[in-house]
Parts: sequence; structure tokens; C-alpha cells
Amino acid sequence: MSDSQINKGVSVISEEVCQQVMGRANAFTAVENVFSAMAKKTAYNFPVIREAIGHADALYGFKSGFDREGMVLGLKSGGYWPSNMAKGLTNHQSTVILFDPDTGKLKSLVGGNYLTAVRTAASSAISIAYLARKDVKVLGMIGAGHQSTFQLRAAVEQRNFEKVVCWNLHPEHISNLAAVAEELGLPFESVTREELCAQADVIITITSAFEALIEKDWIKPGTHIACMGTDTKGKQEVDAKLLTVAKVFTDELAQSITIGEAQHAIARKLIQQSDIVPIGEVINGTKPGRTSAEDITLFDGTGVGLQDLAVAALAAELAEAKGLATYFKL
Amino acid sequence: MSDSQINKGVSVISEEVCQQVMGRANAFTAVENVFSAMAKKTAYNFPVIREAIGHADALYGFKSGFDREGMVLGLKSGGYWPSNMAKGLTNHQSTVILFDPDTGKLKSLVGGNYLTAVRTAASSAISIAYLARKDVKVLGMIGAGHQSTFQLRAAVEQRNFEKVVCWNLHPEHISNLAAVAEELGLPFESVTREELCAQADVIITITSAFEALIEKDWIKPGTHIACMGTDTKGKQEVDAKLLTVAKVFTDELAQSITIGEAQHAIARKLIQQSDIVPIGEVINGTKPGRTSAEDITLFDGTGVGLQDLAVAALAAELAEAKGLATYFKL
Repeated sequence: MSDSQINKGVSVISEEVCQQVMGRANAFTAVENVFSAMAKKTAYNFPVIREAIGHADALYGFKSGFDREGMVLGLKSGGYWPSNMAKGLTNHQSTVILFDPDTGKLKSLVGGNYLTAVRTAASSAISIAYLARKDVKVLGMIGAGHQSTFQLRAAVEQRNFEKVVCWNLHPEHISNLAAVAEELGLPFESVTREELCAQADVIITITSAFEALIEKDWIKPGTHIACMGTDTKGKQEVDAKLLTVAKVFTDELAQSITIGEAQHAIARKLIQQSDIVPIGEVINGTKPGRTSAEDITLFDGTGVGLQDLAVAALAAELAEAKGLATYFKL
Repeated sequence: MSDSQINKGVSVISEEVCQQVMGRANAFTAVENVFSAMAKKTAYNFPVIREAIGHADALYGFKSGFDREGMVLGLKSGGYWPSNMAKGLTNHQSTVILFDPDTGKLKSLVGGNYLTAVRTAASSAISIAYLARKDVKVLGMIGAGHQSTFQLRAAVEQRNFEKVVCWNLHPEHISNLAAVAEELGLPFESVTREELCAQADVIITITSAFEALIEKDWIKPGTHIACMGTDTKGKQEVDAKLLTVAKVFTDELAQSITIGEAQHAIARKLIQQSDIVPIGEVINGTKPGRTSAEDITLFDGTGVGLQDLAVAALAAELAEAKGLATYFKL
């Protein structure tokens, strides 16, 4: 923290400013760096707090951590309020709170709603960049909700996709995603799940499902699958047996086996913890990623606090440099 | 949250404003209410996060919870930065962050340094109000640091004390506390620990000690002891055997037996968890407190997140009503 920042007080980076300053390339680099740091053990996530508060059906909690190289300390606080939509608010509410690691003083408040979508999209994009074949052509999207459009935009920047196929629980709700595909100049087709797996070279699942939407035998050799929806005990997007034939990667091992997509294969003893590779190891070159064009690779993206802190810290830095932050004294 | 508050945005209650609006009587009532709610299970604390971050020797973390009756949701974030003093900052840095339980939106940011001292003093004052004999005359203070002056001011409002006796590890550092006693019109004497126990009817320990400062056999019948310093595994202020002859009360059972003063007596199986009474039960009249003038009562004040939230929510309400809050939009 520079002297001028100390004098200005705590910076506030609004949701609007986050959208102005945080592009996909920046988010990709910030998340890539923090996955690398996690694998090098210079950054670590603290235990996650997640509580059903017994009011408004809300799930509330925090994800937090410290990146010693990036000198980023703080938490993302917030949760899921299912009746917000009726009030004109988004159901997911997030705020990132950053502290100065040298003094513990509050440093920045950063709107977390837009950044959560961006960092989650960056995570699957990183998995595509490091794990998908170079010659993939068809992108399959399982889920067409709010986050799916962020996923699509980030994914298509990693490979030369020629087509998007999509399945959504409610087929009538895929128009948003179709419009983004059209904007990106990509043919878009609504298909069955089995047909999607037959066509797609890369599949992103971004749903709130509690049972497998994809069967093991539907997946063709060489496919890369990014499972981005499962972040809670009980949630599931793909057949647990798929993890026995895929090479499995994750953002964080501890979350993968407890609240991530791998929880089911682990619980059923279909795979072991040692079968799962943190993607930071692949980024750092300490573990191999895909080793043949026939490999099925699966990325279990659970979402860690350090991702939120990384993009929020960068958003704060950019906003402050551009004069877009406001300040208050505490 | 009223419509006008929604329009104004997130309120900021600075450390200075907290000092203006939060008096001892208000803090006492807010903490008393939340102890009562905890015992009625309408308010509960979430698990505590506390991490040695591996930088600046700092301990960082959060205490959080939800009070369903008071409709207060949030966390106190911060920690202990031992080299802050040299930078002209307090070593303990705290910020309270409140959310709207109806929507999850960030509601208020409240400076937590002053409030932490006030809520801790309110806690021991509540223990004196409910557990000390009516006819106590001498108050013994073990510890004379920053928090001790808050403890002294709150304690003397509960009973007609006629004298203060004090012991501090560094006798040369008791002048602050002596000055407060003088301001309050109370004779003040620096004594040995054993002499303190012989004279005092009420003893407050407020230190960072890691071994017993008070022996069981020094304590005379009828004494009330508020142990306010032990909030971490390994810390200790009194002889574990003292808990076998005292009636033991606490703010929160789960913390008392793990990070509070009772951790040692529990670990050595000198007492059982069922021997410890949440003070909220005494406040609610569902469990007895002191039952005779000869009882030794001991309050294990560990410090819970709901205390912080209770005083911060009240400070925010008062500051907003008096036009002393500032606002920002996120």
C-alpha cells in the first residue's frame, strides 16, 4: 500500500467499475497465477464457512485465503438468497474484502457478483488452455443460465471453435446463450445430452444439478470436460464412473474430494485422492496434463477463495490507477 | 433495512463515530441480549477461522454469526499484527461487516477496534452483574494493558467498589489503569498476585498469559473471577484446579472447552463440559447462577462473534439515526 493510498483510506470498487476494468485476459492471468501459487504452496485457502442461516432460505458464508507472493489477503463474503430475484436482485450476493497483509488494516471493498462469474469462467478457460486438444472444433454447453454466457465467451478465446451445441434443463431458457454464440459468429444448436457428447470436443457443465447429467459411455476419446457447477456436498453433474476413465484435474484437491465433482467417485472408492492433479501443477510443469489425443481430461472446478481475491485485488489496482475507485475512512 | 437506507447505500461507521455513539450501558444491553439469544438458540456463532498467515507474524481470521431475532448477520474480520505498534497502529485490527439477512447485500462497515474493547468489558460486567455478591468491595485487576481500562470502567458500574488492587507483569506499566481508578475516585494499590486474591472480592484477569497467574488456594470463598484473556489454545490465566471448586460459567461452551480458560481443566479431565453453564441460561433464568455467599464463581469469557455483531449493529443504528454515518455505493 502506497502512502497516497493510506491517506485516501479504504478503496471501494463498485460492480460497475469491476465490469469496466476487469477483462477476460486479466482474469485469466490472475487466476492462472494463483493456481500456480497454490501448487507452490505460497498461497493457500483458509477453511470455508458455509451456513444455512435459517432465514430467507439463505446459504451464507465466506471463502478466504492469503497469497504471500501476490500479497493478497482477504475474503469473499456472501451467499445465495433464492428469493432475491423477486425483489429485482441477483440471488447470489458477493462482496470481496481485502486487507493489507502488512498491518491487517482494511484496504479495499470490491463488488463480487460480476467478478465471481468472471473468475469461474477464467477457471474453465485455463483448463481448456492447458488440457484440451489443440484441434477441438465443437464446444458443448450443459447449462444456459447466467454464468454460461461468461463461460462461453472465455472458452472460445482458448481454441478455434467452429460450433456450439447446448443442452439446458429448460430448453426455453437458452436464448441468452444462443444470442452470445451468434454475437461471437458461432453456429449454435440445441441438442440432447447424448448428442451433445457425441458432437462436442470440449464440454462445460455449469448447472446446479444434484444428479449426473452425462453418462460415462457417452463421452468420446479425446474430450475435455470442465465441471464447473458442483461446489456443495450432494451436487453432481457427471457420472462418477467417468472419473475412472478420465484424467482428473482440479483447482483445489481438498474441495474436489469433499464438495466438488470428485466427491462421488471418492465416496464410492472409484478413484483415490492421489488420482487427482491440481491444475497448478500442470501450469508449473511439475505434473503432466494431457499426454495423448485419446485422453479424456476432466477438470473439477470447485471455486476457491484465492480466485476471488486474485481478481478482486487486480480490479482494485486497475480501478485505483484509473481513478475509478472511491474512498472512505474507517 | 428501510428504503432510505437502500438508497443511501452501504453505511460506514468510523472508529471515531463508534466512540461517540457506543456507551457502556448500550454495549451491556446489546451483549446481554445476544447471550440470552444464544442460550435460546435463536442466535448462533459460525465456526471461527483463525490462521497464522506466515507473514508479519500475523494471526488473521473471522468470527461470524447470525442473530435471527435481532436480524443481525455478519462477521468481524481482522487479527493481531505484533509489529503494528512500531508503525503507530494498534496491534489488534478489527472491522465488523454487516449484511442484510433478507437479501445478503452488504449493509454496514463498522470500525471494530474500539468496539472489541467495549464488548469485552461488557461481557465481564455482565458476569459481575449476574454472578458477583451484592456486597463486594474490592476489585482486583490482573493485567493493566489497553483493555484493562475498559474492563475497570465497566466493572465499577455493576457494584459499589471501594478500592482497586492491581498486578501487572510489568509493574512500570500500570500508570494508565491507576489514572482511570483515580478518575473514578477509587483508591488504587499495586500488590502481589497472592495479596490481590486475599483482598479482592471480584477479580478480572485480562492478560495474554500462557500459564496460570492465580493459584486455586489463593482464592477466598465468595470471590467472583472473570477470566477475559484466554481466547486461544495454549493460553491460561488461572490454575486449572480452581475450576474444580468454582461454579464455572461461559459465554459459549464450544469455545470455553477448546480455546477458553476451561480448556485446561477439560483436557486434564478435572471437570466435564456439563459442569459449565452458558451465562445466557442465567440471564434467561433457566439455570441458577450464584447460590450462596460462599460460592466461588468463575466466568470464562472467550469472546464470540455475535458480541461483535451486536454492538456493531447497534452502533450503526445509532450513528445512522444521528446522521454520523457516511455512505457509499457498491
